[in-house]
Order: sequence, then C-alpha cells, then structure tokens
Amino acid sequence: MKKIAVFTSGGDAPGMNACIRAVVRGAIYHGIEVYGIRRGYNGMISGDIFEMTSQSVSNIVQRGGTVLKSARSKEFMTPEGRKKAYENLMANGIEGLVAIGGNGTFTGAEVFYNEYQIPTVGCPGTIDNDLYGTDYTIGFDTAVNTSLEAIDKIRDTADSHDRIFFIEVMGRDSGYIAIQSGIGGGAEIVMVPETHTPLKKVVSTLKEGWTRSKSSSIVVVAEGDEEGHAAEIAEKIKEQVGDKLDIRVTTLGHIQRGGSPTAYDRILASRMGLAAVEGLMKGHKNVMAGIVNNELLFTPFIDTIKKQKPIHDDLLRMVHILSI
Amino acid sequence: MKKIAVFTSGGDAPGMNACIRAVVRGAIYHGIEVYGIRRGYNGMISGDIFEMTSQSVSNIVQRGGTVLKSARSKEFMTPEGRKKAYENLMANGIEGLVAIGGNGTFTGAEVFYNEYQIPTVGCPGTIDNDLYGTDYTIGFDTAVNTSLEAIDKIRDTADSHDRIFFIEVMGRDSGYIAIQSGIGGGAEIVMVPETHTPLKKVVSTLKEGWTRSKSSSIVVVAEGDEEGHAAEIAEKIKEQVGDKLDIRVTTLGHIQRGGSPTAYDRILASRMGLAAVEGLMKGHKNVMAGIVNNELLFTPFIDTIKKQKPIHDDLLRMVHILSI
Amino acid sequence: MKKIAVFTSGGDAPGMNACIRAVVRGAIYHGIEVYGIRRGYNGMISGDIFEMTSQSVSNIVQRGGTVLKSARSKEFMTPEGRKKAYENLMANGIEGLVAIGGNGTFTGAEVFYNEYQIPTVGCPGTIDNDLYGTDYTIGFDTAVNTSLEAIDKIRDTADSHDRIFFIEVMGRDSGYIAIQSGIGGGAEIVMVPETHTPLKKVVSTLKEGWTRSKSSSIVVVAEGDEEGHAAEIAEKIKEQVGDKLDIRVTTLGHIQRGGSPTAYDRILASRMGLAAVEGLMKGHKNVMAGIVNNELLFTPFIDTIKKQKPIHDDLLRMVHILSI
Amino acid sequence: MKKIAVFTSGGDAPGMNACIRAVVRGAIYHGIEVYGIRRGYNGMISGDIFEMTSQSVSNIVQRGGTVLKSARSKEFMTPEGRKKAYENLMANGIEGLVAIGGNGTFTGAEVFYNEYQIPTVGCPGTIDNDLYGTDYTIGFDTAVNTSLEAIDKIRDTADSHDRIFFIEVMGRDSGYIAIQSGIGGGAEIVMVPETHTPLKKVVSTLKEGWTRSKSSSIVVVAEGDEEGHAAEIAEKIKEQVGDKLDIRVTTLGHIQRGGSPTAYDRILASRMGLAAVEGLMKGHKNVMAGIVNNELLFTPFIDTIKKQKPIHDDLLRMVHILSI
Repeated sequence: MKKIAVFTSGGDAPGMNACIRAVVRGAIYHGIEVYGIRRGYNGMISGDIFEMTSQSVSNIVQRGGTVLKSARSKEFMTPEGRKKAYENLMANGIEGLVAIGGNGTFTGAEVFYNEYQIPTVGCPGTIDNDLYGTDYTIGFDTAVNTSLEAIDKIRDTADSHDRIFFIEVMGRDSGYIAIQSGIGGGAEIVMVPETHTPLKKVVSTLKEGWTRSKSSSIVVVAEGDEEGHAAEIAEKIKEQVGDKLDIRVTTLGHIQRGGSPTAYDRILASRMGLAAVEGLMKGHKNVMAGIVNNELLFTPFIDTIKKQKPIHDDLLRMVHILSI
Repeated sequence: MKKIAVFTSGGDAPGMNACIRAVVRGAIYHGIEVYGIRRGYNGMISGDIFEMTSQSVSNIVQRGGTVLKSARSKEFMTPEGRKKAYENLMANGIEGLVAIGGNGTFTGAEVFYNEYQIPTVGCPGTIDNDLYGTDYTIGFDTAVNTSLEAIDKIRDTADSHDRIFFIEVMGRDSGYIAIQSGIGGGAEIVMVPETHTPLKKVVSTLKEGWTRSKSSSIVVVAEGDEEGHAAEIAEKIKEQVGDKLDIRVTTLGHIQRGGSPTAYDRILASRMGLAAVEGLMKGHKNVMAGIVNNELLFTPFIDTIKKQKPIHDDLLRMVHILSI
Repeated sequence: MKKIAVFTSGGDAPGMNACIRAVVRGAIYHGIEVYGIRRGYNGMISGDIFEMTSQSVSNIVQRGGTVLKSARSKEFMTPEGRKKAYENLMANGIEGLVAIGGNGTFTGAEVFYNEYQIPTVGCPGTIDNDLYGTDYTIGFDTAVNTSLEAIDKIRDTADSHDRIFFIEVMGRDSGYIAIQSGIGGGAEIVMVPETHTPLKKVVSTLKEGWTRSKSSSIVVVAEGDEEGHAAEIAEKIKEQVGDKLDIRVTTLGHIQRGGSPTAYDRILASRMGLAAVEGLMKGHKNVMAGIVNNELLFTPFIDTIKKQKPIHDDLLRMVHILSI
Repeated sequence: MKKIAVFTSGGDAPGMNACIRAVVRGAIYHGIEVYGIRRGYNGMISGDIFEMTSQSVSNIVQRGGTVLKSARSKEFMTPEGRKKAYENLMANGIEGLVAIGGNGTFTGAEVFYNEYQIPTVGCPGTIDNDLYGTDYTIGFDTAVNTSLEAIDKIRDTADSHDRIFFIEVMGRDSGYIAIQSGIGGGAEIVMVPETHTPLKKVVSTLKEGWTRSKSSSIVVVAEGDEEGHAAEIAEKIKEQVGDKLDIRVTTLGHIQRGGSPTAYDRILASRMGLAAVEGLMKGHKNVMAGIVNNELLFTPFIDTIKKQKPIHDDLLRMVHILSI
C-alpha cells in the first residue's frame, strides 16, 4: 500500500482531529503517502482531495470538530455518485481508505467495496457510543463530560430554588450519554431508550425524595426515550403533581458535539487512527478498529451495523441506589 | 448598628455566595453580629433566620448558586406577610438588612421600609445586568463566559458541517448577555430587545456571508428579542431561504445561571458585599451598592427600578464590523 | 454486618467524595449503618468518628478533595496507635471498614486485620494509577485531564514564541500521568521512570524536529524520571544545545490533585464504593475493589502492594510516531 | 491611509488573536489594506510580511497565543535593524502600524517614529496589567481566571490535608494578578511588590488563623515580591514555625500565558484593535489605545512607559477583611 486517504463522515465528534492526525502521521511514519478528503463522501465525489503532510496536522489534537469537515452524502447512495468517487480516487492513486464516522459511513464503505474493491478501515467517531465492536467511541467521553458540566451548573440553580430539572441529553437510540452523565451528575432518575421508565415511577420517585427532604432533583432524559422528549415528559409530570413541585426543562443540544476533546478521547482516537493505518497495511478491509477490554481488535462493518451493544445493567441499578 | 441580616432573593446568580461571605466577614470585622435568612422574604416570614460565623462562609467563594437559597415570595406582597417578617426580624434584634437580588427584591425592600423603617442596602445579584446604578451586576460576567464557552463548542460543530446556528441566551428585557457573548464568540448577527433587527436584514447578512464563502454562521438571540424566540426566528428564516442553508437552533437555558463564578464576579461580589455592610453602618438605606466607572456608589432603589441602563452603541456596531 | 465505617487516607484524589457518597448510600440501601472517620487512621486513633446519613453526602459528587479529610498517620504504625484505633471502632460497634487510598493505606489495613480481625475492603484512590488490581485508580483520569489542559495552555505560548517546554507532571514511581497527558497533549517526548530516555536521544529528537521546522516542542517529564526533575533535565539539555533553542520549564505541582472529578472518575468511584460495601457484606476482607477489562474484581492487598502494573508499550511507541 | 500592518511583540497574552482579528476586519471595513508581520520587530527586519484577508482571521477569536507569533528583538535596538525594518515596510507600502504588546514594544515604536516617521498606534497586550493608560490590558482577565482555577484546585487538596500553600503567580513589577486571584480565591494573605508584607506579619496571620481553627490557608505571592519567590518565602516561614504547620509551594508558571481568552479579554481586545485602526485613520501616532472608566482614549507611549499605575488600596484591605 503506497497511498491512502482519510475522511470524516456523519455527525462530527470531538477527537476526530486527533484521529486524523494519527492517520496522517502513522501513514508517513510507515512510508505511505496520505491524502485528505473534505466533507466525507461528498468530497470524494467532487474531487476535494489533497495531500497531507506531517505539519498539516500540527496543533489540531486539541481541537473540537474536524478539519476535514463532515457531511452526510445523498449522492453517494447512488451508483453514479459512487462511480465518480471511484474515478477521483483512481485519479489520485488512492489504494485504501480510513473512514472516521458511524454506521452510515461504514454502510457506504461496505457497498463501495463490493463495487470497486477499495478497502476501508473504519474508526468509530460518534458521541453516541452506540457502535458494536468497541467499548467506547471517539467523542463519547467528551460529550459525557460536557453534559456533566452542564448538569453541575444546573444543580447549582436547582438547589438554590428547590427545583426539579428535566435535562435532555443526546442519544437517539442509545442511553449511554444519559446514564453516564446521570450517574456522574448525581441524577435522581435517568430515562433511556433501552429500558422503559414508567411516568408513574418517575412521579413516585420524585415525591419520595421530597418527602425525605431533598431540596432539588435532576432527571436526565436521553432524547430517544420512548416517553418522548424532556419537554413532553415534564409536561406530563406537571399534570400529575400540580403546582407542588417547581419543574423546569433544559435541552443541552449541540454543545455536546463540540469542545476540546478529553484526554481519553484524544488517546483513544490516536490509537484507533494508527491502528487503522496499520490494519490497511496488513490487508484488513471493511472492518472497524475498536478497543474492547483494553485490546485493539477489528470488527467487520457488517457486525458493527447489525449487532447491538447493550447498556450495562449495573449502571442503571446504581442510579437508583446512589440517589437514595 | 449591632445586628444585621443578609438574604438572597429572586433568580440566583453566580457570585451570590462570594457576596454573602463578604457581608458576613465584613460585619464580623466591624464588630457587628450577622444573621442569615433562608429563601429570601419567605424565610423572613417563616422565621428561617440563624446566626452566621466566619467559618460558616468558609470555602463558598467559588461555588455557584446561593447557600442561603433564593425564592420569589408572593406572601411578602401582602401586608400580613410583611408584618410576620417584621416580627421575626424584631424577635432576632435585626436592625438592618443586606438584600442580594434584583429589582423585585429592591421593590419589596422599599415597601417594607416605608411600613417598618428597617433599612436595607442592596447588592445587584442578577445575571441579566439590567440594573441601573452599576456597570456590572453580580453573575453577569460568569453568565457571559458560560454562554461563550457554549458558543465556542457549537462553532466547532457548525464549522464541521457548514451550518448556521441560532443560539438563544438569557435576557428577557436586556441584550447584555447576547451582545457580549456574541462579540466574544464571533457571531455574525446579534439580536437584542433594545434594537430591532428586521428578519430581512438577517437573511441578507447570512446570504452575503455565504457568498463570501463563510462556512458557518452564528446568530445569537436574546430570549426577549421582539422577533420571538430563537426557534421561532429560525423557522421564519428557513421559510425565506429554503433548503440552501442548513439551519439549527440551540437554547442554552439554565446552564447560564450556574457554575463557579469568574474572578470578576467574585471580586465584584466581594466589594459590593463589604460596601453594603459599611453602607448600613454609615446610615445608608434603600440604596443599592454599585460600581460605576470603577467607583463605588449608592443608588436609591427607586432609581435602580425606574431608570433604564442603555446598551453601548459601540458594541452593536462592532458585531457588524467584526463579522465581515 | 450491621455497621461499617469509611475513611480516606494518604494523598487525596478527585473522586474520593463520589466514592464516599457511594459507600454511604450503598450501605444505607442495604440496611447497614455507616460511619465516617476523619483524617484516615489519625481519626480512628483520636475517635473522630460520626454517623453519616444519606443527606450528609448530598451535593458532594462533583467536589474535589475529600469531605472526610485525609492524612498519613505515623501513630498507626505503632502497636499503641492501632490499639487505640481498635478500641474506638469497638466503642462505636464498627464491624467492617472501607478504606479509600493507596498502598500505604492498604498496608496499614493488612497489619490491623492481623492484630484485630476487623475486615477492610479498599478502594484505589490515588492520582498516580500505580496500583495493581485495577486498570484505573480514582483520580487518575481527572489528573490527566488537568495536566492536559495545562499542556494545551503552555502549547499556546510555546508556539507563539517558538519555544521548547519541559513540563513536569506527578508520578514518583509511575509514568502513567506523563504518558497519557503527553500523548493527549501532542508532546514530542515523554520521559517516564519505567523506561530510560537518554538525554542524547532527547537532544537529537528536539534538533531533528527543529530541522523539520517544528516551531515549538513539548517534553513531558514524570517527576520520578531517573534523569531527575524537569528543571535539572532542562539545565543539562541547555548545556548541550546552547542558545540555539529557547528552553523553559514548568512544574505543574499540586493543581493535579484538585478539581472537580471527571465523569470517568465519578462513575469509577461510585462503582468501587458500592462494590466495597457489597464486598464486605459477602465476607471479603483485605482486598481492593478494582475494575480490570470492565469487570469488577477484588485483589488481595498483598498483591496490590507487591505486584507491578506495567505501562502499556503501545503508548510509548505512539508518542514517537505521533510527533513526527 | 491606504495600507497598514499589524504585529504582536513581547510576551504573548490571551486575546492577542481577537485583537489581530479586529485590526484586520476593522481595516478592511474601512477600505484599508492590511498586512501581518510575523514575530514582531524581527519579522519587520527579515521581511516576513504578508497581506491578510477577512478569512485569514476566521475562527481565531477564541484561541490563545498569537497567530502572528511574537518575539523580543535585539536587532531592532540597533540603527541597522531599524533601517532594514523601514526598508521592508516601504517596499510593501505600509503607512501605519498597529503594535500589540507592552512597554518594550512601545519604546521601540517611539524610537522608530523619531527616525522614520511611520506612525504607530499600540494595543496593550500583556497579562501583567502594568500599563498606565488603561484599566485593563489584554490577557489580564484570562490570566487571573487561570490562576484562580488553579487556586481553587489547590484549595481542594489543601483543605483535605489541613495544609498551607504558597502559590506564586506572575507579576514581576506588578501585583495585579496576585491581588485579584488572591481575593477571588479566598487567600488568607497576598504578597505583592507594591507594598511590603513583613514575614513576621505572615507568620502571625497564619498562626492566628489556625488558632481560630482554619483548616487550610492560601498565600498568593507575586513573583516580584520583595521578599523573594514563593519557594524562598516558604522556606523562611518554615524556619520560624517549625513542623507545626504543613507548608507546600506551587509556582503556576506559564499556564497563565495561555488558554482561550475570557469574554472580557475578547471584547476588550476587539474594541482596542478597532480603535487602533480608527486612531491611525484620524492621524493618531505613538499612542496606546486604552479604556479608562469605560471610555476609550489614547495615551502617548511616553506616558504608558513612564507613569505608574497604582494598585487599588481597597483591594489590599479586602484581602485582610475577607480572610478573617
């Protein structure tokens, strides 16, 4: 393998830059030329491809976002789009790809390989931590800490006013951010898509706490909870408890996607970026680099896409015990 | 004056604890006994009043929220409520009050004085910075920095995806947080209640930026803007620009009220707390301690309530120039 | 087991409060009375022991330091001291102990058990991450992130002035903080006690970088490196390179011990605190709760004290590759 | 004026990038071409001068350090150096300069003007806040907050171990950082070059505090204190108090120079950068833009260099009162 390219695709995540840096410097270290592609598959199609040097990734390890920019590409879902992408890669002599993204990204790479036999190794870049094949995804630890800092701030004001706050964090299909920031933030209740928390139970837990003279309560809600968004849930709860409890809602939103990555995410991203390059060199293809139980391993895209990563039961149990 | 009491009232603000600490230690330094009242006027009515020592305010200068808790009191608006409050103060021998809060708090103190002649000196504690009689209020600098950090994070993801973000910050009647976090965050547009920004102008500025190849744009909206909330404004803009621009909305919400106060807020709060005690000693009453042009001065409650503090024109002009 | 006590001992670490909270609430959840002991073994000897309630650990999960305070106890190393400690525990009816600390703490507990048969389960609380029996210790992730933020700040000024910085981080016997904050901070060189980095190699790496037009370099040094402290190493390097390179030194010091714990540390500490209580209930004694490969397990104190936890070779290799 | 250039010189300070951005965009807004000069006067001499566009300062408002890099130039102190600088400016058609830096920078500009009549307007960029002609310098607020965060962290560990910490902050000739971070951090004592704090007084204050059952104490020392560095002072104190008090030292060092600027610094820097451009347009020369009592004004370099800015007496008094 003499020439590879790297791109970021799908929702951005803190640590993507650290990963790009590791891919670029890892490749150069091994004597491989390395190109960057801007805006994911869109740049592959439009030919926004350029050579990267060691210096081009200086001073980016600490930056949020992605210097290669990211996008979701509709055109790549068409055979015409993929044909153009292939031709641009060929024109640049690209023999392998490192794709930093999530399931949508890997699905695209799988289809692309079947048509054009360009091997891809993926790095799991998504704040949601919903990918099978790795204990943690790039960006997750930062997103949890960002949510946690927000919860800490809200706890200050909740406590001062004896209020109950419903705080919505990201996680359409996954409660990972909710559960971790909930435990870390000392939440009384955490509502996640993986398990059903009946509203009756929420009401009784809140009331019980206030009987035991809690002066404030935090309920962390994953955006994908089956009872709806935090605002809707709060409305329903208000209907049941009336004016007795002072209930407020905050939706954290896109702040969870940005910010300087934590140490954990920078190191994880660096390890995975380097692993992806070395994986391509060893002939791996259509697999995602992941770290499970501290060991680096490669999981076929097809498994990362289809298999579910369950949430740790212990964590849900802990929310309950620690909030008594 | 031998015995005074301190309380926090209305919306909490970072730095209130630093102010309480300064009141307590300032009083003790001057040989005055000092009591704390919990939950503002509500605690005055219910008799939740207790003596404070130097140690009782140890290690709180850095904490958000208020250890005395805060509330808005409906009962204090009634003659019966104020009578109970007066009796409780008398029972404890309280001769003067330090009220940390905003206009609602000061209005209450004014009415109370007219009935019972207990002098109050106020400290401006509100993140909105909308009080006449001081350049900055306690909590404002922290709220601006919190908003700014959020904007920085959102800029990361906005840039990665070439998106436009409408970010709503606090400020029902005042654009101070919006204007300062907007300039600090490099926003393209800032919408505040003090001036009218027509939506046509917003659209043309955004389009112009994108023609000049801006890859992302930030619009900071004060919650009290006359065009509505950020979500409403964004909807109207989307109708006008269609799918060409990828527009998102984030409402920062209550995170702006919490968090460890900045150096500026801790020092401001400390100066004002001490000034309030020394003001009471000198016979001041029904005035707010403030700092204008670096000088400490006392402004009658009646002026802080009625007079408007205009926003600096220079700042609005700067938003425009710096985003070209 | 009806009554247990918890204490923190040795150097404090962020997350100890989260651990105390989990011990207290975990015990109460299981119907066990729980006492706190102040200042580690010193408080056991002096009888500074008091009952803790669920509310006594409210709002501490996010605080650095330890509400139970910590100390190293010389008196506990004497039979007289341990006798007094035993008598105080008996007087309070304490049947089991949770000790949050490091090897010194566990050694004391081991000796104590042999004399008085009071079982202890330990939680690994130390920023150094040098304990066998757990992948991470409580406080390590926070210390790494604190160091990393400092390195990020220093990188700003190093870059602006084309300077080389030697940054000393904590780690007397262990390079864990150095290696992780070094990789995360994009350091050119990391010097740790576990491996020897000859000064000749440091000089050649720095010179090489500057030939390749690096504008600044960071060398992270663990305080226990065999070449000496960062200041000494920098002096030796200056002698060899002369005035050509502008070399500065910063020793991060005790900021690494403080601060609000990260999400990782809060969750780790919570899991371990709960595990310690449940471990005592199941009859475990003289073991440390740890998490290895995501699994909770108990390791005899004797192993945590005697066995070495090696540093991951991959990480040292990465420093080299990523700084090219 | 058709063409100007901007540079940063002397020690770097957070907010310099925000200032550069304001100069560049302010100039372009007014139809003036604007050039950047790298590494201060050194780049002027070597001809490292390049045109800047609006886009070249995108996304830098939040970054620490200076994208133009900074240096102290020995060559500019020679007539030959200044001649070369003049020739390079002429070759590029530069008619005016914006110098972001401190007294050394302004002294150079003054000399240069006397020889070659190129007008300079300065912006006060230094963390020390020791410039006459402005209430605050660019970078000061950030440095204070960085020091404060460090002090907060150290307080955590000081409290846990009942220790006394001597913390050295920057300020060779000025105690501004020390006094503000000391008040903000709740320090028991602050030692600054402007006033003499006898060691006897330090000892008695510390002892007094411990008699009143303080569990920890913080002494903030400006690096330029006449009693020496924090480490020396701590040694002398240890000699006097013996083993009774557990004394530690931390020197914060260069972390105070870096980091993302606070809102205050970004806005201050933006106002000053714009003011400098508009000052040049109005014919100002050899003056520094400053903000005194919220009003923008220009002070002759000769005054900023020679006149002293005294520290506010009130602040020193407050340290004493608030630590009782």
